[in-house]
Amino acid sequence: MRVVIIGGVAAGPKAASKIIRLRPDAQVTIVEKGIFLSYAGCGLPYYISGDVRERNHLMETPAGVVRDAVFFQKTKNLKVLNGTEALQIDRAGKRVRVKTLASGEESWLPYDNLVLATGAAPVIPPLPGVDRKNVFTLHGVHDAEGIKAMLAEPRAEDVVIVGGGLIGVETTEALVTRGCRVTVVEMLPQILNLLDWEIARLVELHMESKGVRVMTGTKALAIESRAGAGGAVTHVRTDKGELPASMVILAIGVRPNVALARDAGLAIGATTGAIKVDDRMRTSDPAIYAAGDCVESCDRVTGRPCFVPLGSTANKQGRTVAVNLCGGDEAFPGVLGTAVCKVFDFCVARTGLTERVARSLGMDVVTAMAPGPDKAHYMPQARPLLMKIVVDAKTGRLLGAQATGPGDGSKRIDAAATAITAGLTVQDVANLDLAYAPPYAPAMDNLITAANVARNKCAGLMVGVSAQDVKARLDRNEDFVFLDVRSPKEYAEVRLPRSVHIPLGALRGRLAELPRDKEIVAFCQVSLRGYEAALVLKAAGFKDVKVLDGGIAMWPYELERE
Amino acid sequence: MRVVIIGGVAAGPKAASKIIRLRPDAQVTIVEKGIFLSYAGCGLPYYISGDVRERNHLMETPAGVVRDAVFFQKTKNLKVLNGTEALQIDRAGKRVRVKTLASGEESWLPYDNLVLATGAAPVIPPLPGVDRKNVFTLHGVHDAEGIKAMLAEPRAEDVVIVGGGLIGVETTEALVTRGCRVTVVEMLPQILNLLDWEIARLVELHMESKGVRVMTGTKALAIESRAGAGGAVTHVRTDKGELPASMVILAIGVRPNVALARDAGLAIGATTGAIKVDDRMRTSDPAIYAAGDCVESCDRVTGRPCFVPLGSTANKQGRTVAVNLCGGDEAFPGVLGTAVCKVFDFCVARTGLTERVARSLGMDVVTAMAPGPDKAHYMPQARPLLMKIVVDAKTGRLLGAQATGPGDGSKRIDAAATAITAGLTVQDVANLDLAYAPPYAPAMDNLITAANVARNKCAGLMVGVSAQDVKARLDRNEDFVFLDVRSPKEYAEVRLPRSVHIPLGALRGRLAELPRDKEIVAFCQVSLRGYEAALVLKAAGFKDVKVLDGGIAMWPYELERE
Repeated sequence: MRVVIIGGVAAGPKAASKIIRLRPDAQVTIVEKGIFLSYAGCGLPYYISGDVRERNHLMETPAGVVRDAVFFQKTKNLKVLNGTEALQIDRAGKRVRVKTLASGEESWLPYDNLVLATGAAPVIPPLPGVDRKNVFTLHGVHDAEGIKAMLAEPRAEDVVIVGGGLIGVETTEALVTRGCRVTVVEMLPQILNLLDWEIARLVELHMESKGVRVMTGTKALAIESRAGAGGAVTHVRTDKGELPASMVILAIGVRPNVALARDAGLAIGATTGAIKVDDRMRTSDPAIYAAGDCVESCDRVTGRPCFVPLGSTANKQGRTVAVNLCGGDEAFPGVLGTAVCKVFDFCVARTGLTERVARSLGMDVVTAMAPGPDKAHYMPQARPLLMKIVVDAKTGRLLGAQATGPGDGSKRIDAAATAITAGLTVQDVANLDLAYAPPYAPAMDNLITAANVARNKCAGLMVGVSAQDVKARLDRNEDFVFLDVRSPKEYAEVRLPRSVHIPLGALRGRLAELPRDKEIVAFCQVSLRGYEAALVLKAAGFKDVKVLDGGIAMWPYELERE
Repeated sequence: MRVVIIGGVAAGPKAASKIIRLRPDAQVTIVEKGIFLSYAGCGLPYYISGDVRERNHLMETPAGVVRDAVFFQKTKNLKVLNGTEALQIDRAGKRVRVKTLASGEESWLPYDNLVLATGAAPVIPPLPGVDRKNVFTLHGVHDAEGIKAMLAEPRAEDVVIVGGGLIGVETTEALVTRGCRVTVVEMLPQILNLLDWEIARLVELHMESKGVRVMTGTKALAIESRAGAGGAVTHVRTDKGELPASMVILAIGVRPNVALARDAGLAIGATTGAIKVDDRMRTSDPAIYAAGDCVESCDRVTGRPCFVPLGSTANKQGRTVAVNLCGGDEAFPGVLGTAVCKVFDFCVARTGLTERVARSLGMDVVTAMAPGPDKAHYMPQARPLLMKIVVDAKTGRLLGAQATGPGDGSKRIDAAATAITAGLTVQDVANLDLAYAPPYAPAMDNLITAANVARNKCAGLMVGVSAQDVKARLDRNEDFVFLDVRSPKEYAEVRLPRSVHIPLGALRGRLAELPRDKEIVAFCQVSLRGYEAALVLKAAGFKDVKVLDGGIAMWPYELERE
């Protein structure tokens, strides 16, 4: 069995290794255009920051062996042609035309099965000046080397990052760590579009607290060079003014590499532009499989095609390709768009549907916000964790979860991803037997609290109102009571605008101070006391009582301080 | 509606608070024998260690308010009678006889519904000397205060902890932190009986590396005092000799407090000795509910009754009681015995069935060991995580998971607990879309790797052999080849006994060195290369090839070092 695999970074080597394990007699050849094999692209921001000290560490096995062509040959019995470009697939003849880049020599590689693991490439926006010196993307090892070389120069101080997605945000942290002043320019109204607006806004506020300038709703227009700068970038022109920049990183996103597949007439997904595969990872040609950043995935919640390039998915798909190619029968069931990202002191994580996407699909959803300490609150290592979940209003099924803050969000998002995969409801989630001990979780885990808030909302016990709604009404000077039920000490430290203060413990005795004909929006730090206050008011006959979702902890605007 | 709740620590206050939220008109009275309310019993080891600096922190809300009787009255509208003992339940008359401990005064409290949240009490073993000075349990705040007072004395150096369960182990760390020399005496062949032997052994080795003496298979016989010590404990006599001790902690476990329930004729579980409840948390008397450490739970995997007292479960059950008592209808579905525990630098966590329990129930199981870094291996914050999963051989369903090591086990155990709850198979688990970024997880999450190892075993691609089996055969001098395929550098640093060394990369060229008529057990650090070596040998015609489960990383015995 002759197998040719195009792509030597993630899905390709994974498929190749597994094929050899299943069929030690197979002749497997990996064709890779670049020089580097099996490098950890996701680790590049940490190579720039210095967390990863040597480039080779990104290409080593956990045992410390660099994964080069010799390694693949000796350890895995795989033939690797790196520095070799695949030019054309001859499907009828079952062969691939390749060119050795060093010599320019071309030849045909015959195959019984072909695997496309051609990956993705950074999108270069059509801006004047994108080809200037010191304008980078961050995709391959060479990009990282270029950025690191630039950082060694004394004038690498002002950096503009165009695009506030995962890579833009990770690179921001890396560059701030290296002493740069960073401005993130994002066209959309928020960074990290895979989050809901208010969650992303909490991340923006954190980045701003670290000295980063975050400019959302801002369009980069040109990358320019002042006279005398020798053509090197000096500033970025945007629709909101000029930004000084000695380096620019383009982090708009990536696009699947599908030219080979398209030229060979393989089906391409209409909405994603990525290679269409069935759940066995087979393309429209049964002899050709595809995996990794070049393929279209299926969203497990909506069943719709999606494009979520990730190293973790590439590995799973590579395994699935190998099993099916070797005569097995295994499905890759799709993805939830789960993602996690370190942003300075914050862990930012998400899975499943955001509220925005769910509503845009016409779904009837309930959301719950649950801020709270990520460990028993009396433990010194406890950190705030801000969670939001999205729940199907009719069935109570968990559809999505988002977490941010210094607390451990990745743990809760993994449990949520597992729950969504299994179709669990918030009732199920609230009764999960999650691991509890004070150094690891509160007695009611944050995910369980979020599920209980959602249950209370579904049962009509609590009517929530979002911070965005309240802010808009405050801005319009609408008439309602914004009731803060925290302690006097908490109130003295920080407040929301136009709030009335009655501590929860005093509320039952001070009901007369509140108007019965106005809407009351109660809140506290995390809105448990706000919820209790609303129940006290309802029991006392107040008709229109709501609770601020997420309380002060998740208020995505400036706070009033002493 | 008059509700009396007996017990003011965890399940009681939770049920009470939720009842008031659902039925603000209810008259709820909490009867608590002790003085302290709603204290975090699980936090006591961290109060002893000094991590939690003030006792009140264990009794405060996250907002910093001490949960005393005034708090419950003012904030929650709950009446609390602390320092009050419940003496008798008159089911026919629907009333409880209580005694105010300070005055000795007795009275009857009428109820429409009664909630038993009487908790559990430490088991005191029938040893001579358990009543000596400086012999403690660690259950209530007073116990912790006693231990702390003792630590302030200069001779509190040698401590013997009788019992190596969760509390014994947590207390060990606390006391070592405070400068004590600690010996743990455990009757069973292992500490932490909720783990399989070899996983517990890895924890024991870690404790020993911190200077703790762990004596398993050892029976404490008496707590004694030498002449001149004024009756204070000076040593513990065991069946393996005498241990010096200026303080003894009895950590044998806890027993549910069921005297009131039993005297009232309520059903008690035959195997657990805890109060029998249905899945609505109702006792055999429909007017009486029970929750928390005094009740029997249902094991969600086996369906059998079990007794797993935990603060997290108490909270969920308290909520369930409240909902059902207020006219709702909600089931508490049971537990998985999920637990997590910090043991010095190790996180020790587990959920579901151990291999030992599964086999003792006659189940046909496959196990998989997966040691590896808990984050991308090139990240400086990556730490080893040692996982074991237990899988139903026929269906592939995940039944249990255990994790230990310095890596983040609690995250993987939460995902595993969710997967077990949902009945997911290892195929499902291997394709979970878990959150991936280098600071949080490897591209193939540890749980996914474990699932893939199990899949390989189920598919017959890999035949594993346990370290215990190999060790026994080494000890019996059996004839087989113990093949180490790591690099020469790794081999020079540390080795397993009687091993033959051929690096994986050289194996294909050195097959002639290996006998074809003997069994070969291949291994490496984590046994991925061991697995690949076994496949190379099988492809070359070797008939009897196995792989050491868990590799060197999970070898639960001494290693040979330079």
